[in-house]
Amino acid sequence: MSYELLKSLCGPDDLKQLAPERLPELAMQMRQYLIETLAPIGGHLGAGLGVVELSIALHYLLDSPRDKIVWDVGHQAYPHKILTGRLSAMPTIRQYGGLSGFTNRSESEHDPFGAGHASTSISAAYGMAVGRDLNHQEHQVVAVIGDGALTGGMAFEALNHAGARNNKMLVILNDNEMSIAPNVGAMSSYLARIISGRSYTQAKDTARRILEKLPGALDAAKRVEEHVKGMITPGTLFEEMGFRYIGPVDGHDFGHLLPTLQNCMRLNGPTLLHVITRKGLGFSPAEEDPETWHGLGPYDVKSGAPFKSSGKAPAYTRVFADMLADLADQDVRVVAITAAMPGGTGLSRFAVRHPERCFDVGIAEQHAATFAGGLAAAGKRPFVAIYSTFMQRAYDQIIHDICIQNLPVTFCMDRAGIVGADGATHTGMFDIAFMRNLPNMTVMAPKDEAELRRMLVTSLTIDGPVAIRYPRGNGYGVDTTDVSPLVVGEAELLEGGDDGLVIAVGTRVRDALQAVETLRRDDGVAMTLLNLRFIKPLDEAAIRAHLKPGKPLVVVEEGVAAGGVGQEIAVLALQAGWHGPFAHVAMPDAFPVHGTQAELLRDLELDAQGILGRIRQLVA
Amino acid sequence: MSYELLKSLCGPDDLKQLAPERLPELAMQMRQYLIETLAPIGGHLGAGLGVVELSIALHYLLDSPRDKIVWDVGHQAYPHKILTGRLSAMPTIRQYGGLSGFTNRSESEHDPFGAGHASTSISAAYGMAVGRDLNHQEHQVVAVIGDGALTGGMAFEALNHAGARNNKMLVILNDNEMSIAPNVGAMSSYLARIISGRSYTQAKDTARRILEKLPGALDAAKRVEEHVKGMITPGTLFEEMGFRYIGPVDGHDFGHLLPTLQNCMRLNGPTLLHVITRKGLGFSPAEEDPETWHGLGPYDVKSGAPFKSSGKAPAYTRVFADMLADLADQDVRVVAITAAMPGGTGLSRFAVRHPERCFDVGIAEQHAATFAGGLAAAGKRPFVAIYSTFMQRAYDQIIHDICIQNLPVTFCMDRAGIVGADGATHTGMFDIAFMRNLPNMTVMAPKDEAELRRMLVTSLTIDGPVAIRYPRGNGYGVDTTDVSPLVVGEAELLEGGDDGLVIAVGTRVRDALQAVETLRRDDGVAMTLLNLRFIKPLDEAAIRAHLKPGKPLVVVEEGVAAGGVGQEIAVLALQAGWHGPFAHVAMPDAFPVHGTQAELLRDLELDAQGILGRIRQLVA
Repeated sequence: MSYELLKSLCGPDDLKQLAPERLPELAMQMRQYLIETLAPIGGHLGAGLGVVELSIALHYLLDSPRDKIVWDVGHQAYPHKILTGRLSAMPTIRQYGGLSGFTNRSESEHDPFGAGHASTSISAAYGMAVGRDLNHQEHQVVAVIGDGALTGGMAFEALNHAGARNNKMLVILNDNEMSIAPNVGAMSSYLARIISGRSYTQAKDTARRILEKLPGALDAAKRVEEHVKGMITPGTLFEEMGFRYIGPVDGHDFGHLLPTLQNCMRLNGPTLLHVITRKGLGFSPAEEDPETWHGLGPYDVKSGAPFKSSGKAPAYTRVFADMLADLADQDVRVVAITAAMPGGTGLSRFAVRHPERCFDVGIAEQHAATFAGGLAAAGKRPFVAIYSTFMQRAYDQIIHDICIQNLPVTFCMDRAGIVGADGATHTGMFDIAFMRNLPNMTVMAPKDEAELRRMLVTSLTIDGPVAIRYPRGNGYGVDTTDVSPLVVGEAELLEGGDDGLVIAVGTRVRDALQAVETLRRDDGVAMTLLNLRFIKPLDEAAIRAHLKPGKPLVVVEEGVAAGGVGQEIAVLALQAGWHGPFAHVAMPDAFPVHGTQAELLRDLELDAQGILGRIRQLVA
Repeated sequence: MSYELLKSLCGPDDLKQLAPERLPELAMQMRQYLIETLAPIGGHLGAGLGVVELSIALHYLLDSPRDKIVWDVGHQAYPHKILTGRLSAMPTIRQYGGLSGFTNRSESEHDPFGAGHASTSISAAYGMAVGRDLNHQEHQVVAVIGDGALTGGMAFEALNHAGARNNKMLVILNDNEMSIAPNVGAMSSYLARIISGRSYTQAKDTARRILEKLPGALDAAKRVEEHVKGMITPGTLFEEMGFRYIGPVDGHDFGHLLPTLQNCMRLNGPTLLHVITRKGLGFSPAEEDPETWHGLGPYDVKSGAPFKSSGKAPAYTRVFADMLADLADQDVRVVAITAAMPGGTGLSRFAVRHPERCFDVGIAEQHAATFAGGLAAAGKRPFVAIYSTFMQRAYDQIIHDICIQNLPVTFCMDRAGIVGADGATHTGMFDIAFMRNLPNMTVMAPKDEAELRRMLVTSLTIDGPVAIRYPRGNGYGVDTTDVSPLVVGEAELLEGGDDGLVIAVGTRVRDALQAVETLRRDDGVAMTLLNLRFIKPLDEAAIRAHLKPGKPLVVVEEGVAAGGVGQEIAVLALQAGWHGPFAHVAMPDAFPVHGTQAELLRDLELDAQGILGRIRQLVA
């Protein structure tokens, strides 16, 4: 395909010059372009394919950047990026130095608010709408939010606030019956009831008939809307929340989408437009299996077959899920909770073996934590599997409902540390700092997949809250047969040596070991290496015992330095009377860029080479 | 009043022996007991008075502790405490060594889940209901949640999860049209529409007529409910969320409450009972001004007049609000946001002067932060006033929406540090740790009310996120005329001396100064004292310049030690080559008890005497 039409557009202004009849052709080119461009690099294909027409329609009618479009999560914004001057950069998306995989204020003036996490768009857009009104401006503010993101409590908080006031704002509910996994919860059933009703189909047909008969399609919009509204099940729930509900409309049909949008933009006050789309539309593998195709690696553009990664060692995610299912075999108290990420956290594997003990609560991390607290109060042993970055959403509940009450809930924080292509919004850089300051909490970090298994076993021996952090990606293929519990609070001595002490945490132990081995071999410097295992409680005895007065002390962790365990160790060393050269090899006071995990670890001097360099500076 | 009936009950079992006709008498005694008992000590009177009949009815019908009652927030649980064996301990409530002001698992087996923060009860109760079903048990699980707490997103997350499943659970919506302040938002209007409808009154009358005619009131319950349901506006919103909606019923009328509750307990699946109560019922000052009477100090039992506190210096809260209003006079960009605490944060004073620039978003801290982000993106300068402990709810939004985008939002964290009578759940002990690890964030802590004013001015000179933490209580009555901005990142030298360095943060500067003065006078030890002012960025130059090799280094902060700024300073000192005796005078790795602020600071050795003692240990 030549993409002639697509490439003729330099920005939203060019788009507005097209006759409406040409928009379906543009949509077809864009869809094909996305499928071909992402094939070698991967990315969030399905979400983008679902909103091609909606993105075109919005930019056809709106005047961005004056008008503001806030895309929830931001992974549905690929067509928006293409339409706002970023077509030629699309092959760089999610790669080092390339476009972000999400919206980003610093990337384009057409991205008025960045994202990455779900459910924030209504709050942000409503803030912009109120700011606009205080500024006596008159532009449009539109939030586009998926039905999955609507299960997040903050979306409801925003609806509750905005619905009671009069500021003009349009919320477009992009309903594809999916967030990442098939949606759960009452909201999902509610939306399904609206759509499945005979009335929707009927309304669509009626709308089309009216449009055909009238001379100016856009002029007819108001009549269409009123007619449609009168005929179908109203969106009572949204109406009760103070929003004018319009819909549902077919999100792939310009003939329906354009006049309805046009009409919505004329309305004052808070309006919700319910648009039905199909995730992955135009690429059958993605339509048939939208969960797998939510965010993915390189694939074959014809068959959709993924190019296999070369790693043979199992992913941490998989090791976690299988071990937890094994534990559940032996212990009826074990239950598992995910917040809309059964695939990403591995719990879909657990659910196959223990369906009645696996709970997907939706994009609802706050509820996930307190729900786990209720289960623990009922004698269960809940394991809450949430990515490190999303665990931030449950911080208060972890403190208030779990730690204060000292309930035995285990938080399994996948994607801890550098995550790679998803960049700053998804980086798990704060969990060491925000978990280790909590009374009653035990915090562990495994050095490999075998230790992850043992830490899961260990957590069942602890009568209180536990957090385990482990990285995105594969383990090392080590032997995992030993599943004996660890001694709580005991570090592991990996190397002995009198020339200094290196203390490494979890994901960085392997690279620290490599650095220490290189130092011994190439520099004749023999450092002691401790695998910390327990970020909290700290193995103070082992650390004190291995401190080498006057010799380097190095702490290596894949998390932010401020508040990291390295700072606790510095206090311990000071109070033990130790002094000497000290280095805290950790993430600096800055949000990381995106790229591969290897690229970012290299940049941050957190890989074996970087750690080696930092130790050599101290030794010199 | 003799409280004969009230005092004859040792626990819920005794209550069940009473004839239903005696319950109104019991309610009257309990109400009077609460008013008299709390008069000399203060407490959450209004919430308790509103649920006297509901609490009696629940314990009359349920079998606690086998059946579980989860009271949202927990401040409405005073009658529950009285009914579950804690009558004689009530005069100790919220005092050092006494009963907690909230529910508490360690206080009573009748408190199945503790609370303090709002909106958690449905999540916790649903966890218990699922746990019960997995355990093949059959007891009742009831959550009692106020209409205000329903604006918190996690309550919606819990409804969404529970409503889609079949576990038996009863949610009682205690609707008094208040959370703390009059409620805001669409949910509040929705509930008001249900209640104000003619249908509610009609339904009440019908229910009463039917009850009068039938022999066994409890047997009639099912018919009553069906009849009532058929006649009134259904709770569509809750029905759409998958809950069976029953109500509204008069929460002060046993004749209506008992049969309806009895009936609800027979229903399977998720059920929501809408109960109308009046906050403060039975004590006219509290009925007339429920916001003031939400949580209060000692008062006159006849007139309701509060006993004046002796402090003449203005509260930090008031200084904050007045200064912010002054800034808003001069700068049209300034807007203020509160999460349902206009009185507690002082913003009700701001709202008098700038009503159109003050936003109460409900108990919705997540939305508050991102809404502020949207306003900042629209060119505004939002100040988000939320207690330190509730700011934990917005942690992810502060990171994801504010810090990553480096937006100029100022978080004003009142009640930072020890809060006193509210205890562990309300203590602001983590904010230093969870704010200072965020890239782009500036964190300040004023030593007195004059510095608070200057820090608010300073925040407007910073083009990025700012957090300011200040304590509960009064300032020192210092001169506040100087409102010049501070130099960002610059500490203040308060005392000079060669015998060591003390670095104090915000709330602890005054007491540290007193300790340093005592040392100089009584011990002849001259310490340098720095008022840190900026927790981030740290004044590394000043700290390095004042380090005294071999002499004590002491950091004093009113927050948890792990992750505190003292640990950052330890690293700085180590890397500067300093060594000597080091003390981190901060909160230990434990949740505090409740008591007065002075009692708790004394226990934690964080008052002047405690700091002095810690320094003397180092000097010795």
